[in-house]
Amino acid sequence: MTKQFKENIYEWIDKNEQKAVKLLQRLVQEKSVQGSESAAQAIVVEVCRELGFQIDIWEPNFKELEQNENFISNRKDFMNSPNVVAVMKGSGSGGNSIILNGHIDVVPEGEENQWNEAPYSGVVKEGKIYGRGTTDMKGGNVALLLAMEAIQQCGVKLKGDVIFQSVIEEESGGAGSLATILKNYHADAVLIPEPTNMKIFPKQQGSLWFRLKVHGRSAHGGTRYEGVSAIEKSVTVMEYVKDLETFRNSKIKDPLYSNIPIPLPINIGKIAGGNWPSSVPDLVTVEGRIGVGPDETIEEVKAELANKLVSLQKEDSWFIENPVELEWFGARWLPGSIPLDHSFLQVLSNNYLDVTKEKPIVEASPWGTDGGLFTNVANIPTVVFGPGVTEVAHYPNEYIEIKKMIQAAKIVASTLVDWCKVE
Amino acid sequence: MTKQFKENIYEWIDKNEQKAVKLLQRLVQEKSVQGSESAAQAIVVEVCRELGFQIDIWEPNFKELEQNENFISNRKDFMNSPNVVAVMKGSGSGGNSIILNGHIDVVPEGEENQWNEAPYSGVVKEGKIYGRGTTDMKGGNVALLLAMEAIQQCGVKLKGDVIFQSVIEEESGGAGSLATILKNYHADAVLIPEPTNMKIFPKQQGSLWFRLKVHGRSAHGGTRYEGVSAIEKSVTVMEYVKDLETFRNSKIKDPLYSNIPIPLPINIGKIAGGNWPSSVPDLVTVEGRIGVGPDETIEEVKAELANKLVSLQKEDSWFIENPVELEWFGARWLPGSIPLDHSFLQVLSNNYLDVTKEKPIVEASPWGTDGGLFTNVANIPTVVFGPGVTEVAHYPNEYIEIKKMIQAAKIVASTLVDWCKVE
Repeated sequence: MTKQFKENIYEWIDKNEQKAVKLLQRLVQEKSVQGSESAAQAIVVEVCRELGFQIDIWEPNFKELEQNENFISNRKDFMNSPNVVAVMKGSGSGGNSIILNGHIDVVPEGEENQWNEAPYSGVVKEGKIYGRGTTDMKGGNVALLLAMEAIQQCGVKLKGDVIFQSVIEEESGGAGSLATILKNYHADAVLIPEPTNMKIFPKQQGSLWFRLKVHGRSAHGGTRYEGVSAIEKSVTVMEYVKDLETFRNSKIKDPLYSNIPIPLPINIGKIAGGNWPSSVPDLVTVEGRIGVGPDETIEEVKAELANKLVSLQKEDSWFIENPVELEWFGARWLPGSIPLDHSFLQVLSNNYLDVTKEKPIVEASPWGTDGGLFTNVANIPTVVFGPGVTEVAHYPNEYIEIKKMIQAAKIVASTLVDWCKVE
Repeated sequence: MTKQFKENIYEWIDKNEQKAVKLLQRLVQEKSVQGSESAAQAIVVEVCRELGFQIDIWEPNFKELEQNENFISNRKDFMNSPNVVAVMKGSGSGGNSIILNGHIDVVPEGEENQWNEAPYSGVVKEGKIYGRGTTDMKGGNVALLLAMEAIQQCGVKLKGDVIFQSVIEEESGGAGSLATILKNYHADAVLIPEPTNMKIFPKQQGSLWFRLKVHGRSAHGGTRYEGVSAIEKSVTVMEYVKDLETFRNSKIKDPLYSNIPIPLPINIGKIAGGNWPSSVPDLVTVEGRIGVGPDETIEEVKAELANKLVSLQKEDSWFIENPVELEWFGARWLPGSIPLDHSFLQVLSNNYLDVTKEKPIVEASPWGTDGGLFTNVANIPTVVFGPGVTEVAHYPNEYIEIKKMIQAAKIVASTLVDWCKVE
């Protein structure tokens, strides 16, 4: 019976490919950067309403959120920035519930002249849909909705609840997902279709942003030997950071990382120092991100970096009087995971095989998602798996392959059938 | 006779120390950053008028200046920014003429909270006068005026002309001095009392500002191995620049540099690159200044740096497809000098001994002045010698020692007596 249900579902999905493409285009064309999410959410609400789901729309409450230690945001209110949760109620007992979580917010488009088409065009070319948000991650969200609608339209009644979430603020710290957790939305597993190139990530890396301030001593450039160059000192500091990365990664034995060159990278993303070509620079600021492994805690990782910076003093006494200042700021992602023997993972993998006729690639992810909040704060096992193209997320000319979006919808739908179980 | 003249002059200068201090205070209190020179120049004009000098006040002509290859300025006009030249005419033949050149412009004060007193206070404390411009170089200018007034007030009639110049734009490329040269002001020697800590600089370094752009390839920080860090590449670039500095300095044999750790420094003054902690940076900009030796040409030095950057390609093939971009921008100082056997240098040194009872320290200077323009464009031998404190020029809490300003005035006055000769 299940097999027949799945075939019907796959057929329905194929028939409705254009409808899905149009929906994604509409969603992409509503630019939903931080603060401007409501128009895109309105489309989501409209779709869920037509499907008869039980809808919850609310603006997260800053005062409530800021009490929680996991709240990270540069905003002080979320007016006009609603979360949307839509529940396809199951019939009752005997099945598993699931949260299907996707973020509606997108990062800014950057320099428009780097895009071939307008950044929010939703143009379709050669089987791809282009625009900021296609891959990260509105295409994934559409795959979820398509899966849910297929199940409904094919008359398949599930036992467990399917809780679809369209959240704000994933790109800026997770306040949207955190708000759903604090509202007590719970399930037996979470699936987040972030852009994984169709890989399955049972473990997801967390990350922290750090800022280092390296001090020097000013002097005229013509007598530079009277000063101490903060740029030269920062080169030593960055060597130590690289050394820490090598050490941290030498400890990793997890086979999920075996195909990944650097499992837990420390990236130096930004440097700025000095202000006058003719002066020795006396301050350099360096910013970067450090990966947090699924089996590590935030506190452990913070301490490792702090200790490494202190150890500079043994090599160079300048750092005794002028220690590197370390600050943790901005975005933070908790690591996430699902136990490798968890049945949900098995169900997902089996259905991946059923749809694509190939075994999935199962890996540890190199970047964080809201999955860390579900894993660590809500204690719900979380898997990340989606049709978007990892390499183009956040870049110009972002796109998604329609074929992959459709495949992902089928895999999610058949996974729901096996996981939530059918009446 | 000359000895008696000099003693009278020294006595007059000592008696008029307070007058000189008051004049410097008035000059310092008129903040004369680029574009705002006229109030300070008005004071200079008033002093020169009282002394009966032949005065020439004019605003440099942009259209005329921009025809000259040595014109460097970020300004397109000099309205309300006058040069002042005041001539104490000599009696006629038999003596040498001299240009006494000082700039009236000052660099900005920077962060006011770094100053103990208000930056343009002119406060006197423990024998020092404080304020932006005291040392660089209004104190030197006052020493010149005091010397000229002493000679006049003591009834000493010189044979050669003394041409006092109070110019704009020294800090921004030399347009003021260049304008006097294009107006055909000429003499047998030039003295510039920039802040040398009372050392005599018969050779002065030039300098050029350079900007380097180092390219990388963007990627997500969590998969940083897919990108190429422009920050890492810029570290290699800076190593090569340091290597060039070592090489250039290994060639220097001139005894004038023997007490100087790095005769011709290459200073990296500013770095900026990347814009997101979670991204591999794809562009880093580095700015610095490279010293030009008194016996070098600008073109030679430019070629050396360009070739060094090309040589990176042998070590790292990344630089073949992604060569470092080199741009020469902003300020430029030509090197200056006076032949070591030039009689003016002898006269100055002798009078230094006469006044201070010590031999002067004679060195090659580590930084550029308008002396390069006089040496290379006007072909007039130039010496730099002044009472200001090198280390505090351009910094907060800039000051000058009154005692040194007075000594310098005496040395200049007695030098004029011997150089211009007396009726």
